Amino acid sequence: MPESGFLRTITIEQPSLGNNTSDAQRLEQGLKNELGIDSFDIPLHVLKKLPSSLRAWQFQTKVVLFKNRHAWMVLDIIDPNSDRCVFGVAIDIGTTRIVMALINLESNEHLGEIGFDNPQAAIGPDILSRIHHTSQKSGIAGGLAELNSLVIESVNQHIAQLCDSYGIVAEDIYIVTGAGNTAMTHLFMGLDVMEIIKEPYIPCVNIIDNLPARQLDIKINTNGSVFLFPNIGSYFGGDLIAGILYSDLDKKESPCLMVDVGTNAEIVVGSRDWLIACAGAAGPALEGGVSKMGMTAKPGVIDKVWIDEDSKELNIHTIEEKPPIGICGSGMIDLTASLFLSGRIDIRGKFVKEVCKNHLVEKEGIQHFILVEEKESGTHDSICLSQVDLNSLTSSKAAMYTILEVIVKNTAGLEFEDLSKFYVAGTFGSFIKPVSAISIGMLPDIPIETFEVLGNSSLGGAIILLKDPNAFDRVMHIRQSITYIELNVNQEFMNMFSGAKFYPHTDVSRFPSLTNKLN
Amino acid sequence: MPESGFLRTITIEQPSLGNNTSDAQRLEQGLKNELGIDSFDIPLHVLKKLPSSLRAWQFQTKVVLFKNRHAWMVLDIIDPNSDRCVFGVAIDIGTTRIVMALINLESNEHLGEIGFDNPQAAIGPDILSRIHHTSQKSGIAGGLAELNSLVIESVNQHIAQLCDSYGIVAEDIYIVTGAGNTAMTHLFMGLDVMEIIKEPYIPCVNIIDNLPARQLDIKINTNGSVFLFPNIGSYFGGDLIAGILYSDLDKKESPCLMVDVGTNAEIVVGSRDWLIACAGAAGPALEGGVSKMGMTAKPGVIDKVWIDEDSKELNIHTIEEKPPIGICGSGMIDLTASLFLSGRIDIRGKFVKEVCKNHLVEKEGIQHFILVEEKESGTHDSICLSQVDLNSLTSSKAAMYTILEVIVKNTAGLEFEDLSKFYVAGTFGSFIKPVSAISIGMLPDIPIETFEVLGNSSLGGAIILLKDPNAFDRVMHIRQSITYIELNVNQEFMNMFSGAKFYPHTDVSRFPSLTNKLN
Repeated sequence: MPESGFLRTITIEQPSLGNNTSDAQRLEQGLKNELGIDSFDIPLHVLKKLPSSLRAWQFQTKVVLFKNRHAWMVLDIIDPNSDRCVFGVAIDIGTTRIVMALINLESNEHLGEIGFDNPQAAIGPDILSRIHHTSQKSGIAGGLAELNSLVIESVNQHIAQLCDSYGIVAEDIYIVTGAGNTAMTHLFMGLDVMEIIKEPYIPCVNIIDNLPARQLDIKINTNGSVFLFPNIGSYFGGDLIAGILYSDLDKKESPCLMVDVGTNAEIVVGSRDWLIACAGAAGPALEGGVSKMGMTAKPGVIDKVWIDEDSKELNIHTIEEKPPIGICGSGMIDLTASLFLSGRIDIRGKFVKEVCKNHLVEKEGIQHFILVEEKESGTHDSICLSQVDLNSLTSSKAAMYTILEVIVKNTAGLEFEDLSKFYVAGTFGSFIKPVSAISIGMLPDIPIETFEVLGNSSLGGAIILLKDPNAFDRVMHIRQSITYIELNVNQEFMNMFSGAKFYPHTDVSRFPSLTNKLN
Repeated sequence: MPESGFLRTITIEQPSLGNNTSDAQRLEQGLKNELGIDSFDIPLHVLKKLPSSLRAWQFQTKVVLFKNRHAWMVLDIIDPNSDRCVFGVAIDIGTTRIVMALINLESNEHLGEIGFDNPQAAIGPDILSRIHHTSQKSGIAGGLAELNSLVIESVNQHIAQLCDSYGIVAEDIYIVTGAGNTAMTHLFMGLDVMEIIKEPYIPCVNIIDNLPARQLDIKINTNGSVFLFPNIGSYFGGDLIAGILYSDLDKKESPCLMVDVGTNAEIVVGSRDWLIACAGAAGPALEGGVSKMGMTAKPGVIDKVWIDEDSKELNIHTIEEKPPIGICGSGMIDLTASLFLSGRIDIRGKFVKEVCKNHLVEKEGIQHFILVEEKESGTHDSICLSQVDLNSLTSSKAAMYTILEVIVKNTAGLEFEDLSKFYVAGTFGSFIKPVSAISIGMLPDIPIETFEVLGNSSLGGAIILLKDPNAFDRVMHIRQSITYIELNVNQEFMNMFSGAKFYPHTDVSRFPSLTNKLN
């Protein structure tokens, strides 16, 4: 069984008249021999049991370690002959959903995951409403304390549930690693968030020193430690740093790009030599546009739309093949791509009556494309895409393409073709089909194998930090080396944005792969 | 008013769109500008009030700082416009007596001191009996917990008393620095001490990371921090490191020596380039010999003895000039010197009947020199020095000289004349008159201005650590650079010891200053 970075079994030199340094320095020396690190922070509770334990265990011990900005920490010492296992919990602290993974720190085994809706949603569905809620009263009864305890209590309940499921005790969990956006990370610690949304948008903290679990009221081992991924700023959070870690962007020889389409659209481009990040106001437009009509994936939701090769009619697929009840974000992109490729919408993103035929109806003066008739719908209402919805999606896809263009071309001085990988992270991103996104000009027309869906990269990064001590330095290095650029919405941006509002783009030559597909 | 190292008023750059890093990193940058240090440990309680405080205080703040092995720590932030003062307490954790000093961390002003008997003395007067007591039961009701809470509670009571006396509140005390011998330091932390007295004499810890005051149950500010001086080993404790710091031995260009005569005799010789330390079994012999008859200084105790130039009779001085009730250690050395210089004892340390005349009486077959007659004594008993007492003192002074010889000549390869300073530390040392000690061959015959009495160097060192942030690194450097040598009691040592049992020494040429004084 390979030993993890944070649980080591070491043999300590026996005391003698020739080597009569203290037990603590003897332990440090043992750890130095193992890890090549000079000094360790050994807390009082470990010192209290050190002399008797070392002698009872014949100067062998398992050591539960962790790392912070300034030093390695000894969290506990454990009888090397006992079969006690120790664990870590990684948390993706999402605005909508929180997902936790349980990891065995000895075997690095991934025992399981648990996910649940962020209970703060009861206060406000989005970050902004939650932040405003914190200004309600202060102190223990205040809005900030309420939001903080909602997340902490739900995390504690689900840690208890993980323990139950895997037959372990919370006392055996020593490390929690968490990644979230800047506001969620602050609320997790009970920190003031008001300045995050007020110009000039100042977080309370970017680089967060490890915190004792008991200070955050996280119910794991009393001497457990919590690591939270650092932020770059108010609009670029630890979840992104976790994503970069997970995607290995900081190790790539040639430039790669990662885009996270969540509550916001955040983009990082770079390699082991440089990293440029950008997040901006265009993100919410995309999210808003898609989410307005888009539903969360659940049975009956349309997740795929394609053109029947013979009939040229639109085919749909629903989750679990239940009667259709709505359409999710990735389904929307599929739908729009199908509508465009089949000529049902024109290059300006307007419905073409002659092609749409009887699928197009006018309601209250607005054109609606009927995808599913009333009689086939699971809700007994027809499922439509209105010209308003479509305009919104057009703005979103144009914003996305423009931000990509700004960061890759104008900022990094690259062409899209220079990217050796294009990672799509985030929940929404998990379901996007790059071919469809390219067809509508939302993503650049680069070889399809360049795209890679990362899944929950925030959780993935948090898990890496539990397994690999080197990840800590990588995180600090990523944090340090990122150049964060503010998206400057000026005339140049608006010109680029206008061009991107066409399907696929005013400059069709940028999308050569569409030539064969378009009539 | 000069600012102390650990309390700084800093101005922080105001946030702007061009500088929108977090408040915590803004604080770090402000501290970096002030101190030239890169990173600081900012705890959760500071983060919680940081955004609102910085804005309320127009981005100015007083910062209570401290330092540990791995980083600088921000203990608190304080309104720069308030007149709140913050304090530190230095503690000499003596086996017999505990002394504490209250220091204003802003002005570095020494407000006052308080001293009290170590309440652990009720369990056992000496370290050994206390250590054995810790083996009585374990846990909260055990001997170790009892000894720990005795010292901690008495410290807390006296902190409260200091607060009362100087009109301050314990909440305003942020730092405690403590220096004690290895066993006392361990008991202060509630650590296992049994291995200290069992071969091969292993302390639990030598280099002690700063501890949160609340973990030690020290009643100062809840976020206060405690620094304890590191040990070299079981028989060379933090009190000595504090002494070296206080004497500046680690900064001297030419070799100096410090001897601490307390419960043990510990010696350090060296300069800024090297430090050699030694402590040994000979220490207790000296202490035992002197303390057997010696009394603690109090009114009526004989503290000075000298020869009347005309009558050649012995004169005495008592503390507060009260009727004599006994003699203290330094008085004993004076007395012995006077007896030897006046020919009342011979070079073998035996009373000379013909010179002592009627001052010499035999009780139960043992010669007694009567210093104070019954009728002049405050106790109505005569005050005597028996041949047994004298033999014991002879052994002690010989042991002391021999250890000095071993470390200076045999180990450091120096002559006594090479020492530019000879510091005498410790309570006992405070009262020794070097001239008398030289006269009996206890201290080497070097120019009298070479000797310097340090007083309570352990407290002095602890105070320096409260005032000067550089002291922390000096302490670690001293700890690192000391070569500790075990006193090897072999045939060579015994030969040297035999020579030193003569008055002043078999080799009289070593004491040229006595030539004129001796008949």
